[in-house]
Amino acid sequence: MSRQGAIEETVARCRQQVNAAIDEDLPVKHPERLYEASRYLLEAGGKRLRPTVLLLSADSLADVEMGSLPYRSFPAADRRDVDVLSAAVSIEIIQSFTLIHDDIMDDDDVRRGVPAVHREYDLSTAILAGDTLYSKAFENILQTGAPADRSVRALSELATTCTEICEGQSLDIEFENAAEVTPEEYLEMVELKTAVLYAAAASLPAILLGYNDAVDSLHSYGLDIGRAFQIQDDLLDLTTPTETLGKQRGSDLVENKQTLITVHAREQGVDVDGLVSAESVETVSEAEIDDAVATLEDVGSIEYARETARRLVESGKDHLGVLPENEAQECLVSIADYLIEREY
Amino acid sequence: MSRQGAIEETVARCRQQVNAAIDEDLPVKHPERLYEASRYLLEAGGKRLRPTVLLLSADSLADVEMGSLPYRSFPAADRRDVDVLSAAVSIEIIQSFTLIHDDIMDDDDVRRGVPAVHREYDLSTAILAGDTLYSKAFENILQTGAPADRSVRALSELATTCTEICEGQSLDIEFENAAEVTPEEYLEMVELKTAVLYAAAASLPAILLGYNDAVDSLHSYGLDIGRAFQIQDDLLDLTTPTETLGKQRGSDLVENKQTLITVHAREQGVDVDGLVSAESVETVSEAEIDDAVATLEDVGSIEYARETARRLVESGKDHLGVLPENEAQECLVSIADYLIEREY
Repeated sequence: MSRQGAIEETVARCRQQVNAAIDEDLPVKHPERLYEASRYLLEAGGKRLRPTVLLLSADSLADVEMGSLPYRSFPAADRRDVDVLSAAVSIEIIQSFTLIHDDIMDDDDVRRGVPAVHREYDLSTAILAGDTLYSKAFENILQTGAPADRSVRALSELATTCTEICEGQSLDIEFENAAEVTPEEYLEMVELKTAVLYAAAASLPAILLGYNDAVDSLHSYGLDIGRAFQIQDDLLDLTTPTETLGKQRGSDLVENKQTLITVHAREQGVDVDGLVSAESVETVSEAEIDDAVATLEDVGSIEYARETARRLVESGKDHLGVLPENEAQECLVSIADYLIEREY
Repeated sequence: MSRQGAIEETVARCRQQVNAAIDEDLPVKHPERLYEASRYLLEAGGKRLRPTVLLLSADSLADVEMGSLPYRSFPAADRRDVDVLSAAVSIEIIQSFTLIHDDIMDDDDVRRGVPAVHREYDLSTAILAGDTLYSKAFENILQTGAPADRSVRALSELATTCTEICEGQSLDIEFENAAEVTPEEYLEMVELKTAVLYAAAASLPAILLGYNDAVDSLHSYGLDIGRAFQIQDDLLDLTTPTETLGKQRGSDLVENKQTLITVHAREQGVDVDGLVSAESVETVSEAEIDDAVATLEDVGSIEYARETARRLVESGKDHLGVLPENEAQECLVSIADYLIEREY
């Protein structure tokens, strides 16, 4: 099997377990409509990359064969059992909560191929569904059975992560109307909005299982690959055919969204706002996008973003030196590579 | 000094300390706009009743003179110092988060005499401000310095409380379009939406300070007085003059909002939706409200609500038997009475 195939199989196996755990940990109960709305986006799909990183991090720390031990009662450094799957569910629940609220803020109609929650239900239900997931994530991470001091540290990590995600989303909105954003400011925003959740996913097993020396390095791994993931998303918006992407290629340019590419191009003197004159993704032509991308290539902005993502992935992989050399550690290396090699 | 005056002085003293602590625990930092929006409603005022209940509960449990010891380093049952003021701030932060999101859902323009956050700022900022306060409340309650096992229990109480508040708000919205709601269903909604935060406020000091035997009784005290508080709010909407109330008397009737009074009246065969024909609070007359209130009095619905609130307050006070007999315990008794004696 190809390396890509092996990763995909591992991710699929983890996804299956995470999905089953979500069903267990977030049952539909009274009031049903609230819980159905809370589960709606989780049921619509998702790669479950972040909880997968968490489970693989646990496997590697414990130095066991991937998936060979039950994640619900996983051996900690002191041999006590810890339910790391609960923590994985918490991470995915937080991700889902942020998507529901972000879709309201961005007035996006579609997510994961289905109507956004505020479209399928209504604004109030979407706000409440997000709020419910928020506290459910905290409730869930208190169910791991880890000793109290580690639970407190895990919950602290999760709470700080959520605050930072809000800060990142706030900066993202601020940047929409900002004349000048530097690459450093953009990368700070991405770190807060996107990367901290990968950092929490990678480091939580070290916290919960009592591998204190590995916490900081795994956190750094997550920060690096999370930022690379977002930059790759920005690149794919420009380089992936519309059919593969599932939305209009170049939509970020049409919507004047800041990306690492446009932020760099503006520094090179490019009139980024004038790159695409079409007012909406419905009216833009592929030729216009082609021309814009050619300009961004000419000034080196595409290569700058690619190089930044590559550098972050290499840095992220270096941090994995803290883990024992094993299959799960290799898989975390491969996931880092995959994040910038993926084509959609 | 009258008993009422003494309570008001105590509440004012606690409010002052809570306000100072909010300034310390929730500073405006980068990104400034987000933190300013998060603090906006907290700065607009509020009685701080819930954090006051928390601080008085701590004073009574420790059996010390009210306000005689610093709440930032308050003696636990085992003589360790615990920062109960951090927990009080968490409770007020949660209250503020729910108000910000509720105002969006109810499309309310004014809160505490100032524009609601989504009016003063915008929808996205209001959602994010609420989300930020949410995680800040959890971060804050981790700063009490209590032993880890008690912190975990406190966190668990706070997370469960937040989930229940969401469930209550969801039921409240559901009831707006429900043909028939029983008094039991209404009281369940009020318990979830309003009373659980009083329950958390009253019981958190027992958890954090290690008075385990008092946790359940103080929780029950909070549930009882919290429900009574909401019923009194419903009564005041009908009985307090518009000028004193700060909004149109009878607005709940105009807006077809379910209250314990209307739920009871419907059971008595009253056509509640037809009680007031005016479509908005701008067009309703005082005479129309007077007639509606007279009907509700005739069928005993006003007295039913008053009696229910009285019964809950008596039950709540009974639960305070778990506390040593002291000044703070008496003050918690008085607060229970005050909640149904207040006129606005």
